[in-house]
Amino acid sequence: MTKRVLDLWSEVDVIAGYKTYIDLIRPWVAGKKLVSTGMRQEIDRCREVVEIALEGQRIALVSSGDAGVYGMAGILIECLEEKDALDTPLEIIPGISAANAAASLLGAPLMHDYAVLSLSDLLTPWEVIQKRVKLAAEGDFVMAIYNPKSKGRQDQIEWVRKAVLEYRSPATPVGIVREALRGESQVVITTLEEFTQSPIDMLTTVIIGNSNTRVVGPYMVTPRGYVL
Amino acid sequence: MTKRVLDLWSEVDVIAGYKTYIDLIRPWVAGKKLVSTGMRQEIDRCREVVEIALEGQRIALVSSGDAGVYGMAGILIECLEEKDALDTPLEIIPGISAANAAASLLGAPLMHDYAVLSLSDLLTPWEVIQKRVKLAAEGDFVMAIYNPKSKGRQDQIEWVRKAVLEYRSPATPVGIVREALRGESQVVITTLEEFTQSPIDMLTTVIIGNSNTRVVGPYMVTPRGYVL
Repeated sequence: MTKRVLDLWSEVDVIAGYKTYIDLIRPWVAGKKLVSTGMRQEIDRCREVVEIALEGQRIALVSSGDAGVYGMAGILIECLEEKDALDTPLEIIPGISAANAAASLLGAPLMHDYAVLSLSDLLTPWEVIQKRVKLAAEGDFVMAIYNPKSKGRQDQIEWVRKAVLEYRSPATPVGIVREALRGESQVVITTLEEFTQSPIDMLTTVIIGNSNTRVVGPYMVTPRGYVL
Repeated sequence: MTKRVLDLWSEVDVIAGYKTYIDLIRPWVAGKKLVSTGMRQEIDRCREVVEIALEGQRIALVSSGDAGVYGMAGILIECLEEKDALDTPLEIIPGISAANAAASLLGAPLMHDYAVLSLSDLLTPWEVIQKRVKLAAEGDFVMAIYNPKSKGRQDQIEWVRKAVLEYRSPATPVGIVREALRGESQVVITTLEEFTQSPIDMLTTVIIGNSNTRVVGPYMVTPRGYVL
């Protein structure tokens, strides 16, 4: 949570968000009017936020990580557009995205060019995701993978493993972080050859190293290229 | 600055960093011992930090944005390795990287898969950078470009413009943000065709939209794919 967010709570009348996130911030928002909704109700949530704002109330919409990365910022702007209300005052406050949080727990895997990808095919054709994985692998980008698995989607990450192995060594370091910086984080550093044998679920971020990424003691590090 | 960083200042004895960053945090660190160094002295700065830590003092090394993205986290771990001191207690605190800060000022351009690239060829061969730009463009990744120009390096961004035009429409939105969330931010939303006519320097982050990115009122938005 940034200083801007800590200051924000006193400036708004209402706080809205997915139930789990509202629960996380409860200690900071005692006495505020709270509007919480369930998962996969993003559009309804945004429409409700816009309605409340158009009534003249100051409302904060809470997103996890960075609202601007697979978060609520885009859909909220589209809901303002739908209501012809794009002149409504809006501040988007950036946060620590899961890739950056996971990286901080692994060491420094994102020190060089990287690609951020989601494997969720709910809103993106799987063929588009496959193409991006292949090109990122070919470009030797470090890869930060969001939504690697869900209950109904178990096999994509294994496809990714095989696709990246076409371009990188089986020994390439891979970091797996569950619930990064949210309570009890679980951190594993393993290899491209073996990483899909570790537990991975929808709360996990997977970071695949590039051809220079090394394991340095307890850390996963992608060197920037300085010569010591 | 995150809550963790605000809490940190009281936990350390010494604070080190590039002079400009030390100046930015001066209001929070009154009375602390400060060690500031100039630009391009990253290795010396890290070695000094390691020495102070090995003397038993608690020291914070300040980086701008996210220390884990083109920042000091990796080189610090390599300096610990050099001194055979990898068991030294180390906490890497993630921050808001320039891409995420710039995105928040532009609207929501990073709502879908994106690639983070630096055009600095000080430590990376220009041919590697060129290859990555082409592959990211082909993969329809939103592109967040760090270090687009420096005093001695003016022409690469024009090469990038032409390379991306091979894959994307001239009307593709491009956002240019200078000094994102650091004092007086300057924000421009323009097009792939024209963006190199806007002022760009080493304090600028450039975000090139993908094939779905739209200008929505005053915002640049890459839709996630929700149907309203």
